[in-house]
Amino acid sequence: MTKRLFTLREVDDAIVILDQSALPHAYVTRTLRSLADVAEAIRAMRMRGAPLIGVTAAYGLALALKEDADTTTLERAIDALAATRPTAVNLRWALDRMRARLLPLPAAERRAAAWTEARAIAAEDAAANQRIGQHGLALLRQCARRPVRLMTHCNAGWLAATAWGTALAPVYAAHAAGIDTHVWASETRPRNQGLLTAWELREAGIPHTLIADNAAGHLLRAGEVDLVIVGADRIAANGDTANKIGTCLKALAAADCGVPFYVAAPRSTIDLACPDGAHIPIEERDGGEVRRVDGLDHHGDPATLTLAADATPVANPAFDITPARLITGILTEDGLCDPATPGALRAFFEESK
Amino acid sequence: MTKRLFTLREVDDAIVILDQSALPHAYVTRTLRSLADVAEAIRAMRMRGAPLIGVTAAYGLALALKEDADTTTLERAIDALAATRPTAVNLRWALDRMRARLLPLPAAERRAAAWTEARAIAAEDAAANQRIGQHGLALLRQCARRPVRLMTHCNAGWLAATAWGTALAPVYAAHAAGIDTHVWASETRPRNQGLLTAWELREAGIPHTLIADNAAGHLLRAGEVDLVIVGADRIAANGDTANKIGTCLKALAAADCGVPFYVAAPRSTIDLACPDGAHIPIEERDGGEVRRVDGLDHHGDPATLTLAADATPVANPAFDITPARLITGILTEDGLCDPATPGALRAFFEESK
Repeated sequence: MTKRLFTLREVDDAIVILDQSALPHAYVTRTLRSLADVAEAIRAMRMRGAPLIGVTAAYGLALALKEDADTTTLERAIDALAATRPTAVNLRWALDRMRARLLPLPAAERRAAAWTEARAIAAEDAAANQRIGQHGLALLRQCARRPVRLMTHCNAGWLAATAWGTALAPVYAAHAAGIDTHVWASETRPRNQGLLTAWELREAGIPHTLIADNAAGHLLRAGEVDLVIVGADRIAANGDTANKIGTCLKALAAADCGVPFYVAAPRSTIDLACPDGAHIPIEERDGGEVRRVDGLDHHGDPATLTLAADATPVANPAFDITPARLITGILTEDGLCDPATPGALRAFFEESK
Repeated sequence: MTKRLFTLREVDDAIVILDQSALPHAYVTRTLRSLADVAEAIRAMRMRGAPLIGVTAAYGLALALKEDADTTTLERAIDALAATRPTAVNLRWALDRMRARLLPLPAAERRAAAWTEARAIAAEDAAANQRIGQHGLALLRQCARRPVRLMTHCNAGWLAATAWGTALAPVYAAHAAGIDTHVWASETRPRNQGLLTAWELREAGIPHTLIADNAAGHLLRAGEVDLVIVGADRIAANGDTANKIGTCLKALAAADCGVPFYVAAPRSTIDLACPDGAHIPIEERDGGEVRRVDGLDHHGDPATLTLAADATPVANPAFDITPARLITGILTEDGLCDPATPGALRAFFEESK
């Protein structure tokens, strides 16, 4: 399968991203030329998905050093990018890696090194996507039923990463291997990233069905789901996993029905310094995301509709924590890790280094 | 508290309903003059909520007998109304009651008797609302925290019934008794009845916060909820409960967090002829409800936005089943019943007859 589209690419002294805040209603690309451009794009979720946020932040640092690459500029840029979104640890991971690579260098060499390191991070993410897909494919092969009926949440497909995504990588691998799958794509209010999943799958010719988030429990109870695979924004040392708000409801329903629940993520999502889910910061986003919704008006033009007046009090946590006990396995580029055993993730991580 | 608005009232030879499909974005009433009007209004969810569907169906039968009240007309009208929506048993209950009352009468007397019986059903529902509120108030009083932080799902307030509603009746009773409450109102995609709950509570001056359905698990896990109260569309003999899609996800999360989960419903929602949840028919509604959403456009005019193209495959089950084991108690007009003990509901029902 050839991927015709892209989430991020280099063009001269800039990067071009697919503006996902317009998808699936409009296809818009956007050129980011500065640190400010990148910070805005991450904050406004023009690109989203934990792995892609990490990659974009690395490029953002390269753009930040365009004029000046002294240590103050570097550190300020790192701080500015780290402040954009709190939950996905890939952001911090990528910035830490960039700092470790750039800080020891003379300022004159930092700019070129930043581009090289950002490229390396992107290439490694693409490779991790591919390997997650292959490890996940082994899981799907074990499933007796065809099509294999997966459920996912939010979007952890190629739009969320550099190549194939995380949760959807096994689906793309299965498609390439001729194994039929069907994906239940949950709308994922308030930002409706499930529509991105449905769009990706339609583009790829993979059967799928869009559902309201509320329908997940009913479908699991009705025996319509063979396994659940979701992405992750941060995995704590004990296996507790932060992912898009609503994930833990699917995990609870899957556990109650005996359906395996997998988290797919590259190692850059694993935060061994974070002991458990209670230590993961949960981003609270603007209530306007709940009060309004984007779509197409009756002319077919992109439009925003108001569901609730600005005066309506809203809470809008963007992530929740799925306890490790509800997770059947964590699917990384190095294979499958069962987080239920204490210390399993740390041991797995150390072994596969 | 004086209720200024109404869900249904008699006007001459017709009934006037508040068209809830336009709420909260527009306030529209609609006069229903015939069986066809009522059947359309129920099917299109112009009025909704299990108790209100039962009451409206009773009036629909009275309207159906306007021209002719012979047995064939009566039976055809019952069949037509029964076919409008499958899950809420209050519809069938009201129609069975109307048939039992009307069938033995001479045709000439049926029309007047139908209006009288419909009025009785409405009055009994209002009384049941009030008593559910008082029994629920006792529960809220037991809660040490102020404000008492309730979570609900969908709308089971006065819009769903004849007077105070079911799940929200204890909230209105607490408000009248000077006990502070705060309600987490879940959006309830795809039809967004949570916006009706937010609207009701704002009108009543009761503090509340609107959330995406996905946020319920996070708030429960974060200790932000003292109890959950939902309505019901049908309660089987073993206590398994059908309610708006998404309810069972909240029940699973509440059970996992040790938060009590109550179902509030009049006895007309209890279907002792139905052994368990597996025997409750689940309505599958049009996929357009998921593909589109209603709200206000940038002029402030009611509008519909397309989220997903008509070609997008959609599943849209309207209800799910919450197993009795996840339900702390069922709150009826006769008090609280614990459905966990086998036969408890039947015994409770027989005793309180």
